[in-house]
Amino acid sequence: MAEPLLIFPDDEFRARTAQLQAEMNAHDLDALLLTTPQDVFYTTGFLTRFWESPARPWFVIVPAAGLPVAVIPSIGAPLMQRTWVADIRTWDAPNPVDDGLSLLTDTLRDLRLHRIGVPMGLETHLRMPLADFHSLSKSFDIVDGTPALHRTREIKSEAEIAKIRDICTIAGRAFDRVPEIAHAGVPLNQVFRDFQSLLLQEGADWVSYVAGAAGPDGYADVISPAAPTPLRPGDVLMLDTGAVRDGYFCDFDRNAFVGTPSDAVRRTHDRLWQATEIALDTLRPGMRACDAHRILSGPLDAPGAGRLGHGLGTALTEWPSFTPHDTTELRAGMVLTLEPSAHVTDTHILVHEENIVLRDHGPELLSPRAPQFGTVLR
Amino acid sequence: MAEPLLIFPDDEFRARTAQLQAEMNAHDLDALLLTTPQDVFYTTGFLTRFWESPARPWFVIVPAAGLPVAVIPSIGAPLMQRTWVADIRTWDAPNPVDDGLSLLTDTLRDLRLHRIGVPMGLETHLRMPLADFHSLSKSFDIVDGTPALHRTREIKSEAEIAKIRDICTIAGRAFDRVPEIAHAGVPLNQVFRDFQSLLLQEGADWVSYVAGAAGPDGYADVISPAAPTPLRPGDVLMLDTGAVRDGYFCDFDRNAFVGTPSDAVRRTHDRLWQATEIALDTLRPGMRACDAHRILSGPLDAPGAGRLGHGLGTALTEWPSFTPHDTTELRAGMVLTLEPSAHVTDTHILVHEENIVLRDHGPELLSPRAPQFGTVLR
Repeated sequence: MAEPLLIFPDDEFRARTAQLQAEMNAHDLDALLLTTPQDVFYTTGFLTRFWESPARPWFVIVPAAGLPVAVIPSIGAPLMQRTWVADIRTWDAPNPVDDGLSLLTDTLRDLRLHRIGVPMGLETHLRMPLADFHSLSKSFDIVDGTPALHRTREIKSEAEIAKIRDICTIAGRAFDRVPEIAHAGVPLNQVFRDFQSLLLQEGADWVSYVAGAAGPDGYADVISPAAPTPLRPGDVLMLDTGAVRDGYFCDFDRNAFVGTPSDAVRRTHDRLWQATEIALDTLRPGMRACDAHRILSGPLDAPGAGRLGHGLGTALTEWPSFTPHDTTELRAGMVLTLEPSAHVTDTHILVHEENIVLRDHGPELLSPRAPQFGTVLR
Repeated sequence: MAEPLLIFPDDEFRARTAQLQAEMNAHDLDALLLTTPQDVFYTTGFLTRFWESPARPWFVIVPAAGLPVAVIPSIGAPLMQRTWVADIRTWDAPNPVDDGLSLLTDTLRDLRLHRIGVPMGLETHLRMPLADFHSLSKSFDIVDGTPALHRTREIKSEAEIAKIRDICTIAGRAFDRVPEIAHAGVPLNQVFRDFQSLLLQEGADWVSYVAGAAGPDGYADVISPAAPTPLRPGDVLMLDTGAVRDGYFCDFDRNAFVGTPSDAVRRTHDRLWQATEIALDTLRPGMRACDAHRILSGPLDAPGAGRLGHGLGTALTEWPSFTPHDTTELRAGMVLTLEPSAHVTDTHILVHEENIVLRDHGPELLSPRAPQFGTVLR
């Protein structure tokens, strides 16, 4: 009937399932119960923007032996049938009396699964009504499945790495075209809109994230929505994007200068570029996330206490997080961001970000390396 | 320092807080604890795309008396300081040892709040790690806060209605320009990209949702990603969007015909248009969501069992849901979608969608009414 989705071959999902099952066996789990867009896409290939609707819960059960089972709203059946998943059970959602809970319960019983791992740890959440989860907890032994899931998802296959490289390349072309849309006099919110259009023109399927800011001394804040303030000569403009192609994100930024930046901005930008260069030279598997934080903050006068990098894949940000507290081991196959920041003034900073895959020999860039001295805008 | 965000005046948030507090008192709650992007934006005005990063939890406490308190990652402090919220407590997130849990616990104790409402019901989820929530549950009496929250959020203020009308108007202009980008020979995924650019050009801040499909008999599926299949003469093209301006969504679709559609498609489109017309004439406050489902499905040969409309606001879809099971009372001030669907063949459907605000006298359109006979494309 409908054509299969061709984002990945079925072998990719078989390998992911096998890896999850190895972890489940190590953690003594009968199954993982997954509810988020990223976890459902990872295990099934089910890719849709329909997650934007919070109305309905979606469930994928990955048993410790056998194949994944989808327990989903009927509106998702035609799309799920185009994935590699064969066992698809549906209900007519949303239903205020029983929104899939009895179907999920019956399915878990039917499959004789009792000790169920659900992600409960750092950087996770449960995407289903809590009241229904509490009901479910009375019938099954539900424990934390975070380690089994994270240990698997954090290592990207070559097919995944290629997807992330693709969207990084697309975003790189859009960044190259920023001088077309940004110059003195253009309001920042117009730059944000036009930058999203550039990303789409260059091949992004959609643009889940654009952030940025502009000012003569850098920026006080990197997550505010764009104001209608026009760019002015001397401003540094930062644009950061999580654009998506085939369900995979890039997450890198670029700084551009409207005319001539101040010496302080130029020096800070160079320091960030050099800090990244050092990380590109020295990061290795076997180090820990906190080591990456140390490497990235070391060369900077005012090392940020914040997160200076993180995992990347089917979400804009994934674990581990490069903070002083995160001791996750860095392993070959992790896709990561390097995101040093430094103060220009007491209140204003610059941020620089690149995307890499960690190989046995060290980082391999996925984002096209930023120009050392930034881009100049009219 | 930084300029206040000007999406709404502080009075808007005072009124929302007062309404939440009236509901909390009716439900015997000391406070609501809120964690999702929509609930945080609704109570504080904190608007950012940074929610796309799942790394950090964010908390807003709305006490039954007094003002909201934000317990948030420090990266959000500059933006939260631009809202009306005065009491902002931050921690350096993500922290694998204690990701805000002790700060949240201390804050609730400090404010002498014990019986805490958390949304647990239909169409809700909790955006924080479940393990941390379980810890929190040991120290406080946590109960379902869904009714208090939903009863408040589901009635939109005139300021909110104006925002939704704005984004509907923007999307209407983009739909009017679809003939510029869609005609025979253009691949569907290119149409999706260009339609998103049109929405941005016409004034959307970002485009959180585009769905659609094309085929000679309608479409089997409305949530799949777009394939590179070119449009063909005789196809009906449906595009549906949840574009965003100032944090508010539209959610409506349009059907367009590549040349001449089949009689079956034309008849079905007309039936959907007429079903909507009847709903526009007859829907009234005091009816229930299931009545709206009956009104919308009544004139159609093959009434869908699915959801034929829903709430709309700071999320693409909100409660209530027009299903046979939802008995939520429709009240004046609700912003709703009318979304009838009908079969063209056994497997293929057409969907038509408009956005309204329910007034005392009945629906007032927020989306520009679809052309009765669709749009014709080259």
